Amino acid sequence: MPHAVSRRQLADDLSFSTLAWGAWRLRESHDIANGTDVLRLTEAALELGITTIDHADIYGNYGCEEFFGTAIAAAPHLRDKMEIVTKCDIALICDAKPQNRINHYNTSKEHILQSVDSSLRNLRTDHIDTLLLHRPDPLMIADEVADAFNQLKRDGKVRYFGVSNFTPSQFNLLQSRLEAPLVTNQVECSVLQLAPIFDGTFDLMQQKRISPMIWSPLGGSRLFRDKDDAVAAHLRPVLEDMRVKYNAPGIAEIAIAWLLALPCQPIPVLGTMKPDRLKDATTACSIKLDRQDWFTILVAAQGHPVP
Amino acid sequence: MPHAVSRRQLADDLSFSTLAWGAWRLRESHDIANGTDVLRLTEAALELGITTIDHADIYGNYGCEEFFGTAIAAAPHLRDKMEIVTKCDIALICDAKPQNRINHYNTSKEHILQSVDSSLRNLRTDHIDTLLLHRPDPLMIADEVADAFNQLKRDGKVRYFGVSNFTPSQFNLLQSRLEAPLVTNQVECSVLQLAPIFDGTFDLMQQKRISPMIWSPLGGSRLFRDKDDAVAAHLRPVLEDMRVKYNAPGIAEIAIAWLLALPCQPIPVLGTMKPDRLKDATTACSIKLDRQDWFTILVAAQGHPVP
Amino acid sequence: MPHAVSRRQLADDLSFSTLAWGAWRLRESHDIANGTDVLRLTEAALELGITTIDHADIYGNYGCEEFFGTAIAAAPHLRDKMEIVTKCDIALICDAKPQNRINHYNTSKEHILQSVDSSLRNLRTDHIDTLLLHRPDPLMIADEVADAFNQLKRDGKVRYFGVSNFTPSQFNLLQSRLEAPLVTNQVECSVLQLAPIFDGTFDLMQQKRISPMIWSPLGGSRLFRDKDDAVAAHLRPVLEDMRVKYNAPGIAEIAIAWLLALPCQPIPVLGTMKPDRLKDATTACSIKLDRQDWFTILVAAQGHPVP
Repeated sequence: MPHAVSRRQLADDLSFSTLAWGAWRLRESHDIANGTDVLRLTEAALELGITTIDHADIYGNYGCEEFFGTAIAAAPHLRDKMEIVTKCDIALICDAKPQNRINHYNTSKEHILQSVDSSLRNLRTDHIDTLLLHRPDPLMIADEVADAFNQLKRDGKVRYFGVSNFTPSQFNLLQSRLEAPLVTNQVECSVLQLAPIFDGTFDLMQQKRISPMIWSPLGGSRLFRDKDDAVAAHLRPVLEDMRVKYNAPGIAEIAIAWLLALPCQPIPVLGTMKPDRLKDATTACSIKLDRQDWFTILVAAQGHPVP
Repeated sequence: MPHAVSRRQLADDLSFSTLAWGAWRLRESHDIANGTDVLRLTEAALELGITTIDHADIYGNYGCEEFFGTAIAAAPHLRDKMEIVTKCDIALICDAKPQNRINHYNTSKEHILQSVDSSLRNLRTDHIDTLLLHRPDPLMIADEVADAFNQLKRDGKVRYFGVSNFTPSQFNLLQSRLEAPLVTNQVECSVLQLAPIFDGTFDLMQQKRISPMIWSPLGGSRLFRDKDDAVAAHLRPVLEDMRVKYNAPGIAEIAIAWLLALPCQPIPVLGTMKPDRLKDATTACSIKLDRQDWFTILVAAQGHPVP
Repeated sequence: MPHAVSRRQLADDLSFSTLAWGAWRLRESHDIANGTDVLRLTEAALELGITTIDHADIYGNYGCEEFFGTAIAAAPHLRDKMEIVTKCDIALICDAKPQNRINHYNTSKEHILQSVDSSLRNLRTDHIDTLLLHRPDPLMIADEVADAFNQLKRDGKVRYFGVSNFTPSQFNLLQSRLEAPLVTNQVECSVLQLAPIFDGTFDLMQQKRISPMIWSPLGGSRLFRDKDDAVAAHLRPVLEDMRVKYNAPGIAEIAIAWLLALPCQPIPVLGTMKPDRLKDATTACSIKLDRQDWFTILVAAQGHPVP
């Protein structure tokens, strides 16, 4: 049986699964008690064809990478079946980093190199498939980032590079200094966050034939909360109608299918820690929303008809 | 006598009259009862040098193209004296289109090709001079649009292509996939809608030496209404002063001359159905507003001095 | 002793001091009574390594250039020790310009050429080192500006060209018509005006390796006023902490050091008329704010943590 989850080609020898799995909440989830749970979840994801795993140095107060890496070290044959994405440049106040007096960004060469070395150690791997700058840093010296990227590539520590939460002008600035194309820009998008569809972010991605990764593809949990969120409340019955029509497991799959219809060919990052939810989510790849249904959801999301 | 209306060169073998005439309200006008009226109005426009006729598949609930085409079929020698612009991609709920459950956009190759075939039939012509995508479609696959455009060009059905209501990033995206330059971007602009002058839309047009077409160059009828529109009320006496100074037929001609002064060399689309009004409008081409008068109108329009 | 003030290379044979001095308030200052005071202040600036002097035709109701030029004529050896920047295109209502009925912009070739001739006469010099368009003019015909610039360059009247207050799209438009790169874009930026850091203006400058000049680097006097300015009131104690930590003469130097840390390598224009204040300001060049301190000021300035 072929995998339910198709793939996106990001470079000649790099492809991601169309749905990625995000380790963001790995250490705060009630569903994950120990490394065995991590391993079980990872194997379930890989089995489903979800091979792209999204990390960041800071997730879980700088703890998720190690938690994941330690667990996976018990099954070393899995490493080559997955693409590991991780990020750097955010510096958080937390016990693990007593030198941080304020949450800030750091795109210095020194920090990028140290952060990657730390990620490699924590993830128990000798290479990161794709490293992202986590947030645009107003102090970013693009030449210095390029210098860091070149060294990491040369040393075999990182295969490809991308960014996250970058505007088009920030993207173009950094790209102008790099030899190889950035392979993604991970941004927030969902039926509750339409901005990149209209502000030029996704236009640039399509123009450059780059698949953006998408964080919070379900708007965090906003989509499922009952009260105090007028937009979500307005959207829910519309998505429910579609769920019935398309015979989807839940409205989450409709919301993901809605993103997958975008012509920039995005890669939603799923944050669930439940294998069953991951399995449900893969059905979104088979749901081809009718164009009018897509617009019905858009109109409900933006609260007004198209002009 | 030379025509009062000058011309804009859009491509090697395509020029538009500096003022276009728009068929938007052809079927809802009290001034147009039948095909004879259409023919009379068209002949009047051509006589004045207004040779560019702006249509869209959806105008008049998908009825204007046919109303116009049928009328013009009675005078087949007129076809080569005009440039026919029409548009596609908006899909409206209406009796003529029972398949439409919601107003939406459709830039699929299939829809573009069908829409053009329908426009050709309705307009009783074998070619459209310029086809515009009517609205930016968040589902636009630029490669697919390019494919449709190439086929239409190859088949001789459409000579040139443009867009309407596109932002710079949407414009750049589509252009990146096309062999030939887009020849226009039809956007709303007037003393009551200044956005494209300041948001980069007209900067890009001037940079690419493309004349934008302008819809609602008089702000719909807002400019002439008496009440409830503080900006229009504030503008009217300023325009009236200029009308007197420049000996113009009305303030409409001052408002159009104000647009014609823009360095992007725009092409306002006139929506009137009265030959006399068209004739009056052509005088705008001869009004060269003094730079300070232009800024006097701008300052009245924006409600604050220039910084 | 080397100058405290470093330099920015703007072109092969053009460099500016990292801090410029602005003549904006030369004629309204209580500290400057006559030409002797001007000469004394200029010599003090040059002695400090502040060699770039920022003028505009309109400063002091079209009077600053002449006031400065007359004073400097008494010490002709100084001319080659400074870079004179001046601007054109704003036209102000004032007694000196009875033809101006409204404040407006004028980027016509005729106006640019006349304005430069007038600036040369007033400044008692045979060349301007860098001429800036003062404000983006919605009537700017980029080809005509290029024509004017070419003539001024050919005639030896202006060595280099730049702009002021231009958006990226306005910058790209004008640049597209010029043979030589624009050497700067002078914009407002300070802890009280963060826009160009985030709106793409400085991204484009860094991408093109262009140093922006910065006007109102201290937010006018807002930073020092006591009341009615919540942001300034919130910032002042934060800057004061840094003043103590970095042993700076005042919070002004911290605010300037904060700008100098930006990767676009900006050139703040100082508006003080007091030699002592200029001297204090030069210490900002030696203050290298720690990254976390830089973010502490940013967070205080924007009123929220970084995301």
